[in-house]
Amino acid sequence: MCRISEHVQVTTQYYLHFTRERERETERQRQREESGAMVSNKQVVLRDYVSGFPTEEDMVVRMGEMKLEVPPGSKAVVVKNLYLSCDTYMRLLMNRSTTDLLTPYTPGSTIAGFGVARIVDSGSPNFKVGDLVWGTTGWEEYSLITKTEDLKKIEHTDVPLSYFLGILGMPGMTAYVGFYKVCSAKKGDTVFISAASGAIGQIVGQFAKLTGCYVVGCAGSKEKVDLLKNRFGFDDAFNYKEERNLAAALKRYFPEGIDIYYDNVGGKMLDAVLLNMRFQGRITLCGMVSQYNSDSQEGVHNLMHAIYKRVRIEGFAVQDHCHEYPKFLEFLLPHIREGKIVYVEDTAEGLENGPSALVALLKGRNVGKQLVVVARE
Amino acid sequence: MCRISEHVQVTTQYYLHFTRERERETERQRQREESGAMVSNKQVVLRDYVSGFPTEEDMVVRMGEMKLEVPPGSKAVVVKNLYLSCDTYMRLLMNRSTTDLLTPYTPGSTIAGFGVARIVDSGSPNFKVGDLVWGTTGWEEYSLITKTEDLKKIEHTDVPLSYFLGILGMPGMTAYVGFYKVCSAKKGDTVFISAASGAIGQIVGQFAKLTGCYVVGCAGSKEKVDLLKNRFGFDDAFNYKEERNLAAALKRYFPEGIDIYYDNVGGKMLDAVLLNMRFQGRITLCGMVSQYNSDSQEGVHNLMHAIYKRVRIEGFAVQDHCHEYPKFLEFLLPHIREGKIVYVEDTAEGLENGPSALVALLKGRNVGKQLVVVARE
Repeated sequence: MCRISEHVQVTTQYYLHFTRERERETERQRQREESGAMVSNKQVVLRDYVSGFPTEEDMVVRMGEMKLEVPPGSKAVVVKNLYLSCDTYMRLLMNRSTTDLLTPYTPGSTIAGFGVARIVDSGSPNFKVGDLVWGTTGWEEYSLITKTEDLKKIEHTDVPLSYFLGILGMPGMTAYVGFYKVCSAKKGDTVFISAASGAIGQIVGQFAKLTGCYVVGCAGSKEKVDLLKNRFGFDDAFNYKEERNLAAALKRYFPEGIDIYYDNVGGKMLDAVLLNMRFQGRITLCGMVSQYNSDSQEGVHNLMHAIYKRVRIEGFAVQDHCHEYPKFLEFLLPHIREGKIVYVEDTAEGLENGPSALVALLKGRNVGKQLVVVARE
Repeated sequence: MCRISEHVQVTTQYYLHFTRERERETERQRQREESGAMVSNKQVVLRDYVSGFPTEEDMVVRMGEMKLEVPPGSKAVVVKNLYLSCDTYMRLLMNRSTTDLLTPYTPGSTIAGFGVARIVDSGSPNFKVGDLVWGTTGWEEYSLITKTEDLKKIEHTDVPLSYFLGILGMPGMTAYVGFYKVCSAKKGDTVFISAASGAIGQIVGQFAKLTGCYVVGCAGSKEKVDLLKNRFGFDDAFNYKEERNLAAALKRYFPEGIDIYYDNVGGKMLDAVLLNMRFQGRITLCGMVSQYNSDSQEGVHNLMHAIYKRVRIEGFAVQDHCHEYPKFLEFLLPHIREGKIVYVEDTAEGLENGPSALVALLKGRNVGKQLVVVARE
């Protein structure tokens, strides 16, 4: 007992020492941040426009410098990035632009995406030092954000901060708007979701169960399929890579047809779904990741079935629905707190592992929402 | 003067004689019809399932027999067909069925379509002998119609009877529902219509002008393009066969983009339109005639633009909106009577010319709504 007690004593002392050290280091860092010091700033930079599947080598991790101070007179903020989100749309921004609808990344510059961050300096009346925010930021340790109107202050810190990149952030809102608003989901609907274990799909599936729908998802591995059935409560799920005939597979799971298809992938799966829609079904076009890594788009051949079955196919973008965010939080937070809706994340530690995490996402190697931890506080 | 007067006298006599003869013949015929006589019955029969473009030889005109009497106890009606409609969907019914959504024609049997007809015998409490009706009937002189619930009694005879195959029938309702309901058309919208001089397109274009929209149509000949601009009042029109780059052509007519696309053709034009849609644009999928004569469907490659632009694409079928027919008539009849909306028909005389008229429609040789006169009364 004595030995154990000593050991415990030592361990406790060590822990207290370590904690004090971490607190002192954080304090020193905050002092440095507050003083407008120049700090080193690790960054992920796009090497050049990408064709086909990106590789880690398409991105470079380099060390820059950054003054932790908003320029005089500016309404910008300087943030310390804590978590960064890997999202499939980022692949589109790696293309040389062919449309005025997307502003691509600039080769040689830091890439951008959604992040959770802490305000280090602020010229904005809406944010003060120490505030936690989520919104678009750079893939780097510290960022100067001039477009602060899209940053959202994080008011609820009893849930994991990283959730604001996923279930409580853009993917969550996308699931909510696409399922409830675009698809007009209601009890009894039969629902099919592609990329169903991903950042958005896993939420849509759980919304569907909450609403009293029958829901089936597809994903690209046994592990993901198990997750759908055992963790997220899908009624059924299948590995699309093991199906030679997608339309026949869907017929098996939906003998009476599909009321709602939440489409994250486009291409061949969309074609197979069109053959299996129910009368007055709804398809929400949320993303088409199956097409992002290809220079030419696969054709969709079965649109005639949208006439036969009176199907509504609708593209949407979550940005148009920002005003619904407070309502969304009010709806979702209790479900998360009560454990009625869960969220699975796939976490890469360290900004230097960001490029491989992003590539893994585009190859479907992630299990759950892919994110990168830049700093834990 | 005397000679002229005599001549007039003779002519008048001849006319009176001829009119009396026609009346007597009609009377004799009606007596025959009333007595349940057996009559000869010319019919258009499908020879076999069709692959590719149909030809006249795919249909046979044969002489059958018909008893002008409803079977005892039946609630069916026997009709004399007056006008028959040539519609593009009829091509789909010539295919061997690959889906349970369409019931194809039976090789060796009379084909069916929309017609205007007079009731010759009736077992239905809803129709009496002499009533004029429109609805689905056979391509023959006389038909026994058992499914009478879809027949509509023609109450308004101050407009051409043939209009009930076109502007006051299925195509008119299709234009009305697709434009106002599916596309939620409103003043100021920019509207594009394919197959714009056809049975439906010419009506949609005139609805668009009535509503205060900017409307451009495409068609397949100079004559049709002239009709669009000079007869139907389209703001502009073009011959799609003369455009090497459809997307560039659309960009020329819609520099700010398209709010509403009323799609009658599908395929390449739909793809070009997707590149030119405005934010929150609406596409109604009404028909895809560009695909009907092919065994394989062209792919649509630009659906990603429906996400970029938040576009709603909706298939519909006019059958689902039958309850709106009285409202539709109430809206449209005054416009027709006042000459504010016009309708151009392309008329083939005689049932024996039906097959060539139908083939001409599918090849785009018709100018305006294609119909067949079986009997003028």
